[in-house]
Amino acid sequence: MSKLLIVGTVAFDAIETPFGKTDKILGGAGTFIGLSASTFGIKSGIVSVVGGDFPQEYLDMLEAKNIDTSGIEIVKDGKTFFWSGKYHNDMNSRDTLITELNVLEHFNPVVPETFKDSKIVMLGNLHPAIQMSVIKQMTKKPKLIVLDTMDFWMNVALEDLKAVIKEIDVITINDEEARQLSGEYSLVNAAKKIHEMGPKYVVIKKGEHGALLFSEGKMFYAPALPLAAVFDPTGAGDTFAGGFTGYLAKTDNISFDNMKNAVIYGSNLASFCVERFGTERMQSLTQQEIKDRLQQFKSLTQFDIELE
Amino acid sequence: MSKLLIVGTVAFDAIETPFGKTDKILGGAGTFIGLSASTFGIKSGIVSVVGGDFPQEYLDMLEAKNIDTSGIEIVKDGKTFFWSGKYHNDMNSRDTLITELNVLEHFNPVVPETFKDSKIVMLGNLHPAIQMSVIKQMTKKPKLIVLDTMDFWMNVALEDLKAVIKEIDVITINDEEARQLSGEYSLVNAAKKIHEMGPKYVVIKKGEHGALLFSEGKMFYAPALPLAAVFDPTGAGDTFAGGFTGYLAKTDNISFDNMKNAVIYGSNLASFCVERFGTERMQSLTQQEIKDRLQQFKSLTQFDIELE
Repeated sequence: MSKLLIVGTVAFDAIETPFGKTDKILGGAGTFIGLSASTFGIKSGIVSVVGGDFPQEYLDMLEAKNIDTSGIEIVKDGKTFFWSGKYHNDMNSRDTLITELNVLEHFNPVVPETFKDSKIVMLGNLHPAIQMSVIKQMTKKPKLIVLDTMDFWMNVALEDLKAVIKEIDVITINDEEARQLSGEYSLVNAAKKIHEMGPKYVVIKKGEHGALLFSEGKMFYAPALPLAAVFDPTGAGDTFAGGFTGYLAKTDNISFDNMKNAVIYGSNLASFCVERFGTERMQSLTQQEIKDRLQQFKSLTQFDIELE
Repeated sequence: MSKLLIVGTVAFDAIETPFGKTDKILGGAGTFIGLSASTFGIKSGIVSVVGGDFPQEYLDMLEAKNIDTSGIEIVKDGKTFFWSGKYHNDMNSRDTLITELNVLEHFNPVVPETFKDSKIVMLGNLHPAIQMSVIKQMTKKPKLIVLDTMDFWMNVALEDLKAVIKEIDVITINDEEARQLSGEYSLVNAAKKIHEMGPKYVVIKKGEHGALLFSEGKMFYAPALPLAAVFDPTGAGDTFAGGFTGYLAKTDNISFDNMKNAVIYGSNLASFCVERFGTERMQSLTQQEIKDRLQQFKSLTQFDIELE
């Protein structure tokens, strides 16, 4: 088992979908990654920042899941990062209604001493300079650094993004972003170009169409589980990343074959996340439910063609 | 091994893609289905109609692939169906430039005596009344009737379409069409509604995102092989259908587990079809190439998670 360091927002979200709307609820990439990774019973810690308005009970809930919160700085007179969004009827697109950076604006991540030797580092979607600052604080070279990012940083901080991409092992990115970053329409060619920018592994997330893992000419495809209803897609990508890194931390094996399993676990956990608003489903998830759904993933994808 | 009866257009296509354009070349759903199914070395026959302008060499080529062309009526003083289209840069959408129905306008399909007892029937995309007429000519109830259709028939002949859908076992349809036909956005719910309309099996084609097979609460997912370049998507769906039915005819087994293999074969063959203009790639395809690519499909999708 390896220690997992997670860097990402811990935040308030207010979400509107065709199924209803919420007040300010617990959200943030770091939160979703942490909850997802915690299903593997590993030792993980989140580096983030919140305001004095952030309820202690949320931190207690994370601690109860064996997630170390000592790296979550509390700015007493500040306000927690707040995002509000509204999903369209197809649930594949959304409008951002409110973004209040608040304490995130001056976030200076500090990695706790006990996590400076983490073998796996998951850098959630944040300014690439913040992601870089975390890498620089590691006292021992991690076995695997995984980075999530988005088009916003390509538009406003491309040079910083390119610099941090050079330093990491796995990038997770969606299909449109992979096309934007590489200038290639074909995802096969996009992955090749992104490899050349640094990361040995490229994970391309395609939302309801699943995720592709690329490395050195090898490819693996994990479908998303087709669902009767997607209730709230918020956090699905982060939950995927938490499942991916949580599984790798638990198994302490970063071979391509083991990464195949990791993307399946990521996809599996993401399929739960979207069943309820915010983190609700991830908080109540049981090991038996995870196992039952993995069985569904096997039925969905495994076939038996013999090739002589 | 079962006999396979194929009904579908045999036609001329003129295609323009970002990679180039063609004059009138061999096309048509029946042609693509036949060429794809022929890779299984089965006995198949095409029911269709062409004009006096249709080159004998094309018919000879089909016969050389062991495809019976006696059901292809030749209207000496008529012209062959002609379609011309132009693909956009993303290759996922296209504009129809020309549709000349010609001999197809008065097509009255006649199933040859030797194919009236076919165990597998593949009804390519045509007016649903024509599809129905073929079913009525069968002297022995087929083991499996597969129907392909499109949104056009939902718009202009919905009642005819609903009538024929009641009589068939498998429908192949794309995701948008499944949503239109069922009125359900979720593909899981769409498949359920379409089951209730008749077919026990529903295959939803998602283009570059693969295909889903549904039956009685069971689901299977066959990805499309991610390709560096898609040269010409024309005929990919028909090639999929030909691979699906060709494999089922060869193995003479319509269990759900065997249908999983059939959709993988369909997806495998479709991945070749798009590599060249028209039927070019399918005409030159070898058994070794098919086998090598199936190995790629296995690597792409098979994983090894043990569940106690």
